[in-house]
Amino acid sequence: MKITIVKVGGAVVEDPAQLTSLLEGFKKIEGAKILVHGGGRRATKVAAALGIESKMVGGRRITDADMLEVVTMVYGGLVNKNIVAQLQAIGVDAIGLTGADMNVIRSHKRPIKDGIDFGFVGDVDAVDATRLHTLIDVNLTPVLAPLTHNGTGTMLNTNADTIASETARSLAQTDDVTLVYCFEKPGVLANPDDDNSVIPTITRADFQRLTANGTISGGMLPKIENALAAVEAGVKKVVITKADCLGNNNGTTILL
Amino acid sequence: MKITIVKVGGAVVEDPAQLTSLLEGFKKIEGAKILVHGGGRRATKVAAALGIESKMVGGRRITDADMLEVVTMVYGGLVNKNIVAQLQAIGVDAIGLTGADMNVIRSHKRPIKDGIDFGFVGDVDAVDATRLHTLIDVNLTPVLAPLTHNGTGTMLNTNADTIASETARSLAQTDDVTLVYCFEKPGVLANPDDDNSVIPTITRADFQRLTANGTISGGMLPKIENALAAVEAGVKKVVITKADCLGNNNGTTILL
Repeated sequence: MKITIVKVGGAVVEDPAQLTSLLEGFKKIEGAKILVHGGGRRATKVAAALGIESKMVGGRRITDADMLEVVTMVYGGLVNKNIVAQLQAIGVDAIGLTGADMNVIRSHKRPIKDGIDFGFVGDVDAVDATRLHTLIDVNLTPVLAPLTHNGTGTMLNTNADTIASETARSLAQTDDVTLVYCFEKPGVLANPDDDNSVIPTITRADFQRLTANGTISGGMLPKIENALAAVEAGVKKVVITKADCLGNNNGTTILL
Repeated sequence: MKITIVKVGGAVVEDPAQLTSLLEGFKKIEGAKILVHGGGRRATKVAAALGIESKMVGGRRITDADMLEVVTMVYGGLVNKNIVAQLQAIGVDAIGLTGADMNVIRSHKRPIKDGIDFGFVGDVDAVDATRLHTLIDVNLTPVLAPLTHNGTGTMLNTNADTIASETARSLAQTDDVTLVYCFEKPGVLANPDDDNSVIPTITRADFQRLTANGTISGGMLPKIENALAAVEAGVKKVVITKADCLGNNNGTTILL
């Protein structure tokens, strides 16, 4: 079955106008689809209002017991349910899930490494593709919050990019999966100052050439490395594009 | 199909020891089952920590835009996902839902009446029993938060007792439904000071007699009236019992 998984970050889902535009684009995607969302900025705001400080290491949130309650509320409740209600309003039969629901994503608490304890952060063990099919096969559209569980009663905070790529890899065992990462640019640019310079396709060989000649550098390197790892693990293609370009055939496609 | 719907209030689900005991009892219920939970005390606490005052009229929460965000976070995120994770931990394949998920419970904003504007409170229009069967029929256990949606993108706050009774009535069109209300006493008591004086069964005729002779009065009147209305609408039986009596055959059974 053809399945498209779209990952969208907090900056888009927390802005009402951008969210509406994203969901309209998402609706236009044909076939089965799954939306994976972030919500970190909103979690930071709610935590601050509750007097809880957000501590980040390498862009990742340290999640102590109080912060775990905040992210469970914000990702699983506020952000997820508002997206589901808005998708329902435009005719997409959405259902919100965390990894605990239907035991769909099991994880384990990240071990302390190099002296850094991320707290209640979960590293994914398994995504249950069969359970996702229970929903997809009756035309439901899962909306995944960046939360998993450890199987013994504790929710864990898990990066949305990871949820998206692990879900794509799991479904790729049986399905024709496209993974779309929405970010702030229309795609990977040949000239970072020119939004019209989108590179349409990148393979592993292209990536080596473009890295060697300096066209791709900095924050794009790990993004494309992760995308290549996904296609090498069986995901048919990974698309990097802007949220409001969803449903068009724009963006950069990462292929085997 | 035999389906048991259990409604449990905030006082139980917000106390870790009582919640564990409730979930163990819930697990023992044979056949398909649905859990409906409250969470009002926790919402009041989180609102207070955010500097938002809780205003109640006749025991019901006035839900302005800020309070809607709080209940969406607390009911749909914090309380619901912790229950789901704990049910998964004891082998119950739970899936958390609000009314927006799968469009399972549609409502409309309660109109202003007698000068009272409850704000973002939803009165239920319809519970989609077919969608609930999509889950129940594959051995999933829905866990319903007291939230609905209006179909045009807005979440609404809906009383958990109402969610439970409306869900029971809807499923009763096709299924053999038992509705269980957990409350602080082991059942309807013949002597309010004696927890061993549980009245085992009450019919409409019994209710009239027990009301006339003063055995039942006060807050029990609307509870039993609602239970009788449910059985008269097709629900097979309604049981009123204590949370930790779940799975035993104790409590008061309201019958046609």
